[in-house]
Amino acid sequence: MTSSPAAGTGGLTCGIDVGGTKIAGAVVDAEGHVLEEQRVTSPATDAEAVEDAIARLVGDLGSRHRIEAVGIGAAGYVDSGRRIVMFAPNVAWRDEDLGREIHERVGLPVVVENDANAAAWGEFTFGAATDADDMLMITVGTGVGGGIVIDGALYRGASGSAAEIGHLRVVPEGLPCGCGNRGCLEQYASGSALVRDTRALAHTPEAAALLARAGGDPEAIDGPTITAAAAAGDAFARNRVAEAGRWLGEAIASLTAVLDPGVIVIGGGVSEAGDLLLDPAREAFARELTGRGHRPVPEIRAASLGNRAGVIGAADLARY
Amino acid sequence: MTSSPAAGTGGLTCGIDVGGTKIAGAVVDAEGHVLEEQRVTSPATDAEAVEDAIARLVGDLGSRHRIEAVGIGAAGYVDSGRRIVMFAPNVAWRDEDLGREIHERVGLPVVVENDANAAAWGEFTFGAATDADDMLMITVGTGVGGGIVIDGALYRGASGSAAEIGHLRVVPEGLPCGCGNRGCLEQYASGSALVRDTRALAHTPEAAALLARAGGDPEAIDGPTITAAAAAGDAFARNRVAEAGRWLGEAIASLTAVLDPGVIVIGGGVSEAGDLLLDPAREAFARELTGRGHRPVPEIRAASLGNRAGVIGAADLARY
Repeated sequence: MTSSPAAGTGGLTCGIDVGGTKIAGAVVDAEGHVLEEQRVTSPATDAEAVEDAIARLVGDLGSRHRIEAVGIGAAGYVDSGRRIVMFAPNVAWRDEDLGREIHERVGLPVVVENDANAAAWGEFTFGAATDADDMLMITVGTGVGGGIVIDGALYRGASGSAAEIGHLRVVPEGLPCGCGNRGCLEQYASGSALVRDTRALAHTPEAAALLARAGGDPEAIDGPTITAAAAAGDAFARNRVAEAGRWLGEAIASLTAVLDPGVIVIGGGVSEAGDLLLDPAREAFARELTGRGHRPVPEIRAASLGNRAGVIGAADLARY
Repeated sequence: MTSSPAAGTGGLTCGIDVGGTKIAGAVVDAEGHVLEEQRVTSPATDAEAVEDAIARLVGDLGSRHRIEAVGIGAAGYVDSGRRIVMFAPNVAWRDEDLGREIHERVGLPVVVENDANAAAWGEFTFGAATDADDMLMITVGTGVGGGIVIDGALYRGASGSAAEIGHLRVVPEGLPCGCGNRGCLEQYASGSALVRDTRALAHTPEAAALLARAGGDPEAIDGPTITAAAAAGDAFARNRVAEAGRWLGEAIASLTAVLDPGVIVIGGGVSEAGDLLLDPAREAFARELTGRGHRPVPEIRAASLGNRAGVIGAADLARY
């Protein structure tokens, strides 16, 4: 099949990260160095337009670099053959053969991977967990995603849908989630949850300084506003970030009971709050880990590649 | 090291299953057939006495069969080197080199494995999941245990403590668990939970027939009483078993979001209730699986080896 990956190529590959609002593309070498990077606005609602935009991005980067293969990270369920997007929450892809569509447009081998899996692979191979064999990565952004590496290989599960960490149920009959369930982790520990709860509390006395920072309009409070206020020492903002961290740490305790990962890496936009998010997560994890005192405790670390993890990981996955 | 396993032996091995009250031992051939089986009462509180009892059991079976290696399944955390019991909840083993202790007593290669992992391996290799490559097994007995098979191999995790399914937190600030946490699955879906809740409700009108079956004494209601009443059509007992099934199915939905297993096998004593437990689990699972409609749905099956899964799996693990 022509869209099969470029096995073991040591040349340049192109990594694409398809988000809800942006498409990022990068040319990456075999050591994970980014040679050139571009971001374009995503025509998210139109499936074919997204494919055309990806192809233009690859074509443009390819006009200046000798790209040998393309790796695409996309939010959604990707089949274990790494070509077909079975379902994407933000793009109108339903059983879409994205691998073939892009291959036909750019004439290069293409592999498709879940975006959080691609970011996990980037951190594992070139980022925060290069010393580990087994890793759980959790990306805390608009949603909560995950990626699992076992024995040095990305774990995709039987159907390619593994590591949907955001849909671990943490509260029975809890908050409704976009996936149709209630009580998913994503509703408690994501950037969206952080913003939602902070806005709801915006008119309490404790929130006065943060609200002023947002010009007095609760709806103007967004993730970066909260993170910046927390970094500047705002106690209310710190408590909000810590609350997300606690949910995260408690979920990591459950996930460690099941997965026993060697190391846990936290990435995504909210992780830019650094230890303001991670320390409460570490405390909750240490308090809630089953068997604590009788087993090694995996370390919780910050991701190190920032928002490039997805393109770097996707580019590297194109080599396999 | 003398206690290394008997790699690839095609002869007879001995499987040992160390429970809280009993030790089971069996001589098993390379096709998983049990040639002879024995059960002895476990002197659970005395670590050395348990080791002596295991050695006597192996010695007795070995006097009639040519055993080449021993596999031991024990409740607790077993190190990834498959020799040391880091912690056992029912036996006074703390960082106990059980592999060496038994090897020194019986003079055969010995491997040690978590008991639920051993049972999972038994079902995967010779039981309900011989057609699968990836499997999640949940044993619902006094507690709730688990075992994970990935790509045809038992998944132990980075430190050997993976698949502690019973300590997935399903209710924040929920019921206290023996592990020190609150809200663990084991407190909602185990045989102990089933008995605890049924006894608590024993004096309600709906429970009258079940209570009569137990001679009018709530404390005489045990797991087999409830299961037998449910099988005989008692509506109250059926509802109790179904409640455990619902918790199980909801937890399986969370676990499938993370693990995406090819097939799920339910074993352990409570699973003898069959579809009275499994149908409510299947319904809850189908209702709660994230991404349902956009992904393959793994099948939930009953285990097929009964309480022999542990000894058969442990015996087979001694071959690797």
